[in-house]
Amino acid sequence: MTLPAPRRSVYKHDALDRLFNPKSIAIYGISPNPASFGAKTVANLAPWDGHLLLINPKYDTIGTRPCHPSIAALPEKPDCVIITLPMEAVDAAATECAASGARSAIVFASGYAEMSEPARIAAQQRLSAIARESGMRISGPNCMGYLNGPRHLLASFSAAEMKPDAFEHPGIGIASQSGALGYGFAQAAHRGAQISHVLTTGNGCDVNIADEIAWLAEERSCKTIVCIFEGLEDPEHLAQAGDIAWKAGKPVIVHKLGTSTQGARAAISHTGSPAGSIEDYRRICERAGMVMVEDMEGVMEAASFFAKAPRRPSALGVAVLSPSGGLGVASADAAEKHGVPLPQPPEDVKKKLEALIPDFGSRRNPADVTAAVAGDLARTTQCFDAMAGDATYGALVFPQVLYSNRTTDRDRMFSEIAERHGKPILLPMVGGWIGGPGYVEAERNPHTTPFLSVDRCFATLAAWFRLEERRAAEEQSTQDK
Amino acid sequence: MTLPAPRRSVYKHDALDRLFNPKSIAIYGISPNPASFGAKTVANLAPWDGHLLLINPKYDTIGTRPCHPSIAALPEKPDCVIITLPMEAVDAAATECAASGARSAIVFASGYAEMSEPARIAAQQRLSAIARESGMRISGPNCMGYLNGPRHLLASFSAAEMKPDAFEHPGIGIASQSGALGYGFAQAAHRGAQISHVLTTGNGCDVNIADEIAWLAEERSCKTIVCIFEGLEDPEHLAQAGDIAWKAGKPVIVHKLGTSTQGARAAISHTGSPAGSIEDYRRICERAGMVMVEDMEGVMEAASFFAKAPRRPSALGVAVLSPSGGLGVASADAAEKHGVPLPQPPEDVKKKLEALIPDFGSRRNPADVTAAVAGDLARTTQCFDAMAGDATYGALVFPQVLYSNRTTDRDRMFSEIAERHGKPILLPMVGGWIGGPGYVEAERNPHTTPFLSVDRCFATLAAWFRLEERRAAEEQSTQDK
Repeated sequence: MTLPAPRRSVYKHDALDRLFNPKSIAIYGISPNPASFGAKTVANLAPWDGHLLLINPKYDTIGTRPCHPSIAALPEKPDCVIITLPMEAVDAAATECAASGARSAIVFASGYAEMSEPARIAAQQRLSAIARESGMRISGPNCMGYLNGPRHLLASFSAAEMKPDAFEHPGIGIASQSGALGYGFAQAAHRGAQISHVLTTGNGCDVNIADEIAWLAEERSCKTIVCIFEGLEDPEHLAQAGDIAWKAGKPVIVHKLGTSTQGARAAISHTGSPAGSIEDYRRICERAGMVMVEDMEGVMEAASFFAKAPRRPSALGVAVLSPSGGLGVASADAAEKHGVPLPQPPEDVKKKLEALIPDFGSRRNPADVTAAVAGDLARTTQCFDAMAGDATYGALVFPQVLYSNRTTDRDRMFSEIAERHGKPILLPMVGGWIGGPGYVEAERNPHTTPFLSVDRCFATLAAWFRLEERRAAEEQSTQDK
Repeated sequence: MTLPAPRRSVYKHDALDRLFNPKSIAIYGISPNPASFGAKTVANLAPWDGHLLLINPKYDTIGTRPCHPSIAALPEKPDCVIITLPMEAVDAAATECAASGARSAIVFASGYAEMSEPARIAAQQRLSAIARESGMRISGPNCMGYLNGPRHLLASFSAAEMKPDAFEHPGIGIASQSGALGYGFAQAAHRGAQISHVLTTGNGCDVNIADEIAWLAEERSCKTIVCIFEGLEDPEHLAQAGDIAWKAGKPVIVHKLGTSTQGARAAISHTGSPAGSIEDYRRICERAGMVMVEDMEGVMEAASFFAKAPRRPSALGVAVLSPSGGLGVASADAAEKHGVPLPQPPEDVKKKLEALIPDFGSRRNPADVTAAVAGDLARTTQCFDAMAGDATYGALVFPQVLYSNRTTDRDRMFSEIAERHGKPILLPMVGGWIGGPGYVEAERNPHTTPFLSVDRCFATLAAWFRLEERRAAEEQSTQDK
């Protein structure tokens, strides 16, 4: 019988640096078979500029690289050992790594706690014990490694096309229990989003999702954190990670899977994680100032917005300018649903709008500028400047249904207005032509964020405003002391 | 003072055929200015093979076409007159059309009830009276005409790129109060959806959204109807239209705008429509067997599914096969939320799955086939055939996050399995790469439907099952009589 492991705090940034930012990586279990985990990982590591070492006692060389018989025989102590061996051989390899002073290890093999069998759970507990007793940090088992974009380092067998240049700028760091979801969400890079990291935990026998959030929070190249998870052994870890991210000023977008009875059962057989209740995690997120996004398809939209938006809105009010009355109506519906104020423009702004917008449009908020004005860049710019120039508004929303009228000039117009006033412009594009012309350009632009949903656009604004209220209350309480 | 108009039933198909399927169209107010409503409409009518007639007393010809001074002077009585004149001139023109025996008219001009001014409301009531007294059907004012795809007929000034070949097959008919939303949603054609019609009503002084639904219900080239609206003067019309569509076996997807206080206010200044309560309309939809979709971005997904799926599911159970454990969990969550049964496979199916799926995957429902099986088309096909061949399941769901592994072979595999078993395959593609490789192919395929949301995929299945329960109950009650 195993005693429960003593509780610990989330790992400090330094403790995980050899794992996620190594100078040297050894592949334990490399094989010449190109379909093997090892060979795929070596192929993925090609753009990385660190020391790559291979371990397999059966070969002297693989390809053009020397192959070593053991960890001890390596020319240097590796920062990270990627164990690509089958499950049966992992225990011995991990023990050897720890004994030889490797700083961290990644275990890809499946067949542990996700099997819900006592022997398999015990095997995972042995890996936990090795990590605890040696101080060698272990990622996995049943995981898909990680991507460190700015380092051009894809430490994974994942077949996802990770063109390094799409990942080298500071951006969104994703921490995910599920490897497929983590790399899948990172494909937002293909539509213009900036992704910095994908860190997967799989079963998380040692390093868990909270440790990854905490590491990303103190990583310069990451601006906003996305967390996709099913459950944590110790939910308090999530609260600790949230506090660290809050202090670092980095928004954390949390998406929880396994919120239903059936889903929780599926979660056990996926990563062996007890799913826990959504309410518990919602409370933790609220307390720590993390943003919970419940619809999966809204996660990367919210993350993109937070990665670009000023950390603090200048006012808790939003101006909606719409080229279509129907979208003005939809925006008002969504704003009210999410509690986002749409204050009416003050007299001077109203007068400006009345001079610009025909009387069959709407000069209120939401403004229906009409198709005539929307087709005229100069007049559209004047409408935006009138609204954006007023202190009532902290952000502007321009919803669209028709993609065909978009031009490069219009992209530039939005960008310039947003930059001029220091206020983000959100662009819900909800026509049937999903991701049509202009979508990728809006995503690539540092001042605008496209959304495929009016509802999610306002849900994101509501979350931004809630974080500001929390920060303002915190400042107040500091001043009061 | 005007007395309220007598109540009427929704118009019969024949009554609107001259409007939506005319042999001849006259443009009243044609101008040589290419930016005018008239010139834009004439340009849009180029692919149409009907008789186009021009009216403007100031010109003898415009371009190469003769121009006539009045309706009476036309060489034939036009089925439809498109009045492109400014608001001030519309009343006289409409009166002339009615007196000269024109069968229908479309009014683009704005400045009517949406202005909320007594004089403007009265102007709209005069148009209503002309229609009522003459029997000439009027579409508008403040509308954007319509598209009849199979006729290659875009009777609108809309600048939406409506490549006729994307609209010529039977498919989704859209009825929308808002022109921008109607044409915007029809841009789903660019991502592979089949659209047959876009009918807009604007303020709907005569022909309203319910009349359009009823017309589409009896139009052969329309398979499924989408209705986007803010409110109806007589909500009972919607119920009548729903009954007609139900009898015709055509699903109606209803999306209501103006569900909030602010949104309802915006609706008045958009189409002059009292928005009415969402609860009232929800009851009407339920009673008439229409499907209400509350998130705008789910409307066209649901419509695509219904346009392709067998009218009646063979069983009220769904099998989920997932290449990723995380998506299996998300699917179970969404199924439970929407009340979609995911029955466990019977013993013989379970045995087949156990022979195909590794033990660290899941051979339950949702099945986690694992990345290894998902990468092997033959084994994936065997898994699908095992599930689809069982009478327990009426549909299959294969959620995906990674777009990069998709191949043409895989598109063909899904299509063949769905066709072989007569069961639809739903493909939630929820990675960050929105509409990445394979998305358009899945939409174009007559047997598969892509979704950008696991949640909306199951919401759509739930709606399909509810319609089946209603149809089964109706059959039962007929037998009992």
